[in-house]
Amino acid sequence: MLETVLAAARAGEQQSLEHLIELCAIPSVSAQPAHARDIRHASLWLSEHLRDIGLRADMRETAGNPIVYAEWRHPDPTRPTVLIYGHYDVQPPEPIEAWTSDPFTPTVRDGYLYARGASDNKGQFMAHVCAVESWMRTTGGLPCSVKFMIEGEEEIGGTHLGEFIARNAALLACDVAVISDSELLSRTQPVITQGLRGLVYLEVEARVATRDLHSGSYGGNVQNPAMALAQILAGLKDAEGRVTVPGFYDDVRVLSVAERAELARLPFSEANIVAETGASMAFGEPEFTVTERRGARPTLEINGIWGGYTGPGSKTVLPATASAKLSCRLVPNQDPATIQARVVDEIRRRCPPGVSLSFLFHGMSAGTLIDLDAPEIRALQAAAQDTYGARPLFALEGGSLPVVLDLQRALGKPIAMLGFGLPEDNIHAPNERFAIECYAHGIEASIRFLDAIGRMPSGRA
Amino acid sequence: MLETVLAAARAGEQQSLEHLIELCAIPSVSAQPAHARDIRHASLWLSEHLRDIGLRADMRETAGNPIVYAEWRHPDPTRPTVLIYGHYDVQPPEPIEAWTSDPFTPTVRDGYLYARGASDNKGQFMAHVCAVESWMRTTGGLPCSVKFMIEGEEEIGGTHLGEFIARNAALLACDVAVISDSELLSRTQPVITQGLRGLVYLEVEARVATRDLHSGSYGGNVQNPAMALAQILAGLKDAEGRVTVPGFYDDVRVLSVAERAELARLPFSEANIVAETGASMAFGEPEFTVTERRGARPTLEINGIWGGYTGPGSKTVLPATASAKLSCRLVPNQDPATIQARVVDEIRRRCPPGVSLSFLFHGMSAGTLIDLDAPEIRALQAAAQDTYGARPLFALEGGSLPVVLDLQRALGKPIAMLGFGLPEDNIHAPNERFAIECYAHGIEASIRFLDAIGRMPSGRA
Repeated sequence: MLETVLAAARAGEQQSLEHLIELCAIPSVSAQPAHARDIRHASLWLSEHLRDIGLRADMRETAGNPIVYAEWRHPDPTRPTVLIYGHYDVQPPEPIEAWTSDPFTPTVRDGYLYARGASDNKGQFMAHVCAVESWMRTTGGLPCSVKFMIEGEEEIGGTHLGEFIARNAALLACDVAVISDSELLSRTQPVITQGLRGLVYLEVEARVATRDLHSGSYGGNVQNPAMALAQILAGLKDAEGRVTVPGFYDDVRVLSVAERAELARLPFSEANIVAETGASMAFGEPEFTVTERRGARPTLEINGIWGGYTGPGSKTVLPATASAKLSCRLVPNQDPATIQARVVDEIRRRCPPGVSLSFLFHGMSAGTLIDLDAPEIRALQAAAQDTYGARPLFALEGGSLPVVLDLQRALGKPIAMLGFGLPEDNIHAPNERFAIECYAHGIEASIRFLDAIGRMPSGRA
Repeated sequence: MLETVLAAARAGEQQSLEHLIELCAIPSVSAQPAHARDIRHASLWLSEHLRDIGLRADMRETAGNPIVYAEWRHPDPTRPTVLIYGHYDVQPPEPIEAWTSDPFTPTVRDGYLYARGASDNKGQFMAHVCAVESWMRTTGGLPCSVKFMIEGEEEIGGTHLGEFIARNAALLACDVAVISDSELLSRTQPVITQGLRGLVYLEVEARVATRDLHSGSYGGNVQNPAMALAQILAGLKDAEGRVTVPGFYDDVRVLSVAERAELARLPFSEANIVAETGASMAFGEPEFTVTERRGARPTLEINGIWGGYTGPGSKTVLPATASAKLSCRLVPNQDPATIQARVVDEIRRRCPPGVSLSFLFHGMSAGTLIDLDAPEIRALQAAAQDTYGARPLFALEGGSLPVVLDLQRALGKPIAMLGFGLPEDNIHAPNERFAIECYAHGIEASIRFLDAIGRMPSGRA
């Protein structure tokens, strides 16, 4: 049966690609209010598509963007249930001029589909949707019960999903939740996520005057908010990349020798950093390897900075204000609220006289760790190994997925995380893409995983 | 003779006001293309008016707005020549709704003429025009040769005047140039501009990666160009506002006790800074007064800064690049090229490893200092003292006036700068106005100045 479904998926590859192209053409940018209608369009498209392939599906309204919920209940109620998570919203495409083809005109080139969201996350959750479609078309049903929960606020750290999960624990009840929102190490080396970092994201505005001032009349006689902001930010890290905020590292767990050895198996080096980013060198806390710095160490980074005249040529103004967006990645043991408060306190402490600060907070989440011995995680491991031909590595990821925390808290079940994308997919950057081969492998891995879960001891939900 | 001309001017006050009202009714807003015809209308009106009062006048075309040139040559060619500068273009009047009377329906209220351009600069150069008219009507000639150069791009920082001056040095040859485009300190306290600061303006870009990176995947593992730029910029000034660039102050002339005492006569205080800017306090080199910091000390200021995600909400990127626009105001003794090189060297020296820098240069100009001992400046001083009843103060201005440098370079003669406006004239703001008394005093001062120049040793031109 499994082989028949896999063969059907292979035969339907072109159709699967067309579905993805349709979805990627919808500019569902959650960060930009101008795209509010596109957000609804994407959620509508998805719920219709899930109905088309044989699921019960609808849009669940939230105080923010709608969540697409769909399910197929196995006639045998003792069969296990898989909950599949995805997000249909995408990052802003800017700078548009850096794209070779339009970000919302999905384009196939050299074995890749180029589009904003192709890899993060439309392509990855659509692999699961296509796997379900293959099962349904080939066998008229699925080996287990399946639920989809596809949200629209992942890229803006929206809190409405957490609320939805907390209020709908019964609806979402499952034996395992699956998330594909990460990367393979290479086309033949799968990686299962063992841990994720948390996130604190804030914005600070430094203000001096009530309007931009003439730099000839007032230069040298008032604080410059851009200089004040530079001086505040410059002091938050030392010259070797350590965060200097007092207490920042207090709750960071010291890695054991065994953990450092497991992390060292990941063939991730300074050379990777250089090759993937175009930077001339890696840079970070000198006491740790790049792999440790990515997964096991917290960070503080400037995500954006602006103030004063930023157009062409010159304008002799002193800016009235200057602003920065800042975020910290957190390891599992750190409390986001505590870290946010410490960063804010330190920014305030460093603020020079004559400058007033205001803050905006763009969400926070804690880090998470997965139990690798859970049978569902072992099933994922087997499905990945059969698909890619290599035993998966286990990674402490640098990124943050608040949904993992919310699902763990509400459902108390393992979270199986296997990424279908590649490091070179340019997610969150111009020319985002998804390898068509990766899409096919994702579909296969999902087909195998559903099969394995269907054959597990029943009644865990 | 002088007294007769002054009496004639007083008798003709109403007529002088009517001329100004006619000119102010023309909305010659240079920044707004919709007013292109009004710009031509104003320049045409002016050249006709200058012909009416007995000068040879015409419009000189440039690649931008026309320059009105007029002259009256004294029959005795050894008599000195005065070149009078002004600008007939005005700031945009917006927000219109904030005006009590229409900005281009000049209205007399409470001893003021209310109109856009009444003080900046139509009223001020028309005082010179009316002074010339008084001499001509009363004596049939002038005590010296007079040239007018009235441009139409001052409010848009147009470069065509500089080109015109450079190409027409012979036409503009004079013994002294006069500029009235500034303020009295009060109705009874004239101010002669002794110095203006120069300017160096540059832009620096810090680059790390070839594209924006995901802050979860790469945060903590590469340099962040926004952080690197913040660290570079933060180090260019100390916590008290002193520029730390090595050699930055080397060529700054130390003020003598007498100079400091002269500057201290200007009643400009920290309270002014607070009232005018809305800042909570003044801030700058603690060893100097606000007046000294404005005119006698060089500055380094950030005019703009940008990098990474600057839209609404959050985007978890590490910027590929971050940039800043920086400028230095220079005092007369400083060499702009030297200062630019020192700032660039220091930025390079402070650049952390893994960050590459590139620079753009947006021009430079030196500061200017007027020789107060030049007989023409002494003549201006005497004319001002006789008119206002108080010995003029000498001000070091914080801004830069390109026309002053252009005239100095092309003509090599003293620039006599005496403003006829008041600080409360609302220039560049709604309800711009010019006190009718100030207009009359401007006319008187100009009549006296022309008389004094006419009685000077001849042949300096």
